[in-house]
Amino acid sequence: MLTLWIPASHPRRESLLIREKLVDGFKRGLVVPEGLIAHGRGECFDYLIGESTQPFAIRAIEAAVAALLLAKHPVISVNGNTAALVPRDIVELAREVNAKIEVNLFHRTREREEAIAKWLKEHGAVEVLGVGEDASATIPELFSERRRVSPRGILVADVVLVPLEDGDRTEALRKMGKTVIAIDLNPLSRTARAATITIVDNVVRSLPLMVVKAREMKNLDKSRLEEILRNYNNNSTLQEALKYMLSRLKELSESKLTLFWEEK
Amino acid sequence: MLTLWIPASHPRRESLLIREKLVDGFKRGLVVPEGLIAHGRGECFDYLIGESTQPFAIRAIEAAVAALLLAKHPVISVNGNTAALVPRDIVELAREVNAKIEVNLFHRTREREEAIAKWLKEHGAVEVLGVGEDASATIPELFSERRRVSPRGILVADVVLVPLEDGDRTEALRKMGKTVIAIDLNPLSRTARAATITIVDNVVRSLPLMVVKAREMKNLDKSRLEEILRNYNNNSTLQEALKYMLSRLKELSESKLTLFWEEK
Repeated sequence: MLTLWIPASHPRRESLLIREKLVDGFKRGLVVPEGLIAHGRGECFDYLIGESTQPFAIRAIEAAVAALLLAKHPVISVNGNTAALVPRDIVELAREVNAKIEVNLFHRTREREEAIAKWLKEHGAVEVLGVGEDASATIPELFSERRRVSPRGILVADVVLVPLEDGDRTEALRKMGKTVIAIDLNPLSRTARAATITIVDNVVRSLPLMVVKAREMKNLDKSRLEEILRNYNNNSTLQEALKYMLSRLKELSESKLTLFWEEK
Repeated sequence: MLTLWIPASHPRRESLLIREKLVDGFKRGLVVPEGLIAHGRGECFDYLIGESTQPFAIRAIEAAVAALLLAKHPVISVNGNTAALVPRDIVELAREVNAKIEVNLFHRTREREEAIAKWLKEHGAVEVLGVGEDASATIPELFSERRRVSPRGILVADVVLVPLEDGDRTEALRKMGKTVIAIDLNPLSRTARAATITIVDNVVRSLPLMVVKAREMKNLDKSRLEEILRNYNNNSTLQEALKYMLSRLKELSESKLTLFWEEK
C-alpha cells in the first residue's frame, strides 16, 4: 500500500496526515476495518466544527479533568483508534490524573488486545489492564466479548474516560452509576448523548489539551474542582456544538459553491 | 474479522449493512483502507440528508442521465468503493446509456485493477477499460499513477460519470473540457464543487435510480434532453443540499439531547 506524499499547501493536509496514522495503526493490527469507517464518520463532523477545538469543547475538557482529578478510581478506556492516534497522550494523561489504562475493544481478540498493550507500553505505559485473563469481570446489559472488563479497572472505576466509545457501552456504564467522559465528534451520537461529559472534538487535539489542563488544574483546591464540575451542563455543550455546526453550514450555504465558470 | 449480526429493529441497520458490504469488498482486495475512511465520511453526510434521496438529488440524476444519453463517448469511471457497493448497477447503467466502464483508482495497483475488473465481469460487464497496459494515456495536471487513463475511455470521453471521485481528478477532467457528473454526499467537497452535475446522494440509492431513469428517458426526444440539461443549475443543487442538512441539524439542535436524567 502507498503512503501518499501530501503537499504542505494541501487544504486537507492535517486531516490526511491523521488518516495515514490510522492506516498505519491498521497495518500494525491495532485498528479494525470498522474503526477506519468510524474514523471517516468523525472526519465529517470535524470538518463541520472547523477542525479546531471550540469553546464548548474546552469547557467540557475542564469539567472532565476536574472529574478525573476528583475521582477515587479513574480509568482511561482505550480502543484501537485511540491507541493508534494518541498513544503518548493517553500515557501522560493517566500519569497526571493517576488513572489506570484499560484496553476495551468492540471487536475483541487476544491478538489485538496484546498489540494495543504493547504499543502503549512502547509509548511509556507501565501497566495496561484488560488484556487476556485480566478482563475477567463483566458489565451488565452487554453481550459477548463486549461485556468483559478488568476487575481492577473499569469494574470498580467511579470515573471512566471513553474516547471513541460506542453507545451501548456508554449507556451500560452510566447505568452502573459511573461518571462517563466521552470524546466524540458527533454531538448526536448515542455515546455523546448518554455520557456525563461529552468533549465534542477530535481526539488528536483534545487529549493533548487534557494533559496540559491536568497539569494546570491539579494544583487547584478540591472545592474549586467541585465547583467546575457543578457548573457544567452537558446538554448545553451538545446544543452549542450543534449550533456551531449549523452556523458554519448556513454561512457556506449562502456562498457560491461551484468552482468552475457557469452561464447562470 | 467478525460479521456482526444486526437486529431488524436497529436504527442504523441499513447503514450497517452497507458498511458490511464495503468491508467485504475490502477483504476481496477491491477496497483500500483509505476507501473505508472515505466511506465513513460519506455516512455522516448521508445521515444529515436523512439517508434518503432528496429532490435536489433527483433533479441532478435527471440532468446526469440526459447528459449521458446525449453524449458521444460516455464513460463510467469506477473505483474500489463503487465496485464493492453497486457492481450490477454500474453494468446496467452502462448498458442503458451505451457507456464504457473504466477502472480508475487513486491507489492504483495492478492487482486491484484486475480484482475490480474481474468483480465487474462477474456482475455482467463485457468490457472493462483501464486495466494494466490499457491505462496508457495520461491526463494533464495530475501526478504519478493517478494520471493514467485508457485512450479508448476517459481520454476521449465527452461525459464522465465519477461516483466517489477525488477533487484533483475532477478538476483535471473539467479543465480538459469534459462534462463531469459526480456522486458525492458532501456538497462542500472539491469534487462536488468542481463537477458539472453533482448528485448529492448515496451511491447505493442513486445508481439504481439512474438505471430506472435511463430506461424512462431514453425514449425522449433529443431536444427534450437538451432542455433538461439547459435548465439544470449545479450551484442551486449544492445550496439546496446544504440548506436541507442545515434544517435537519437545526431541528435536532432544538430538542433535549442528553439521554440521562440531570439536575439542570
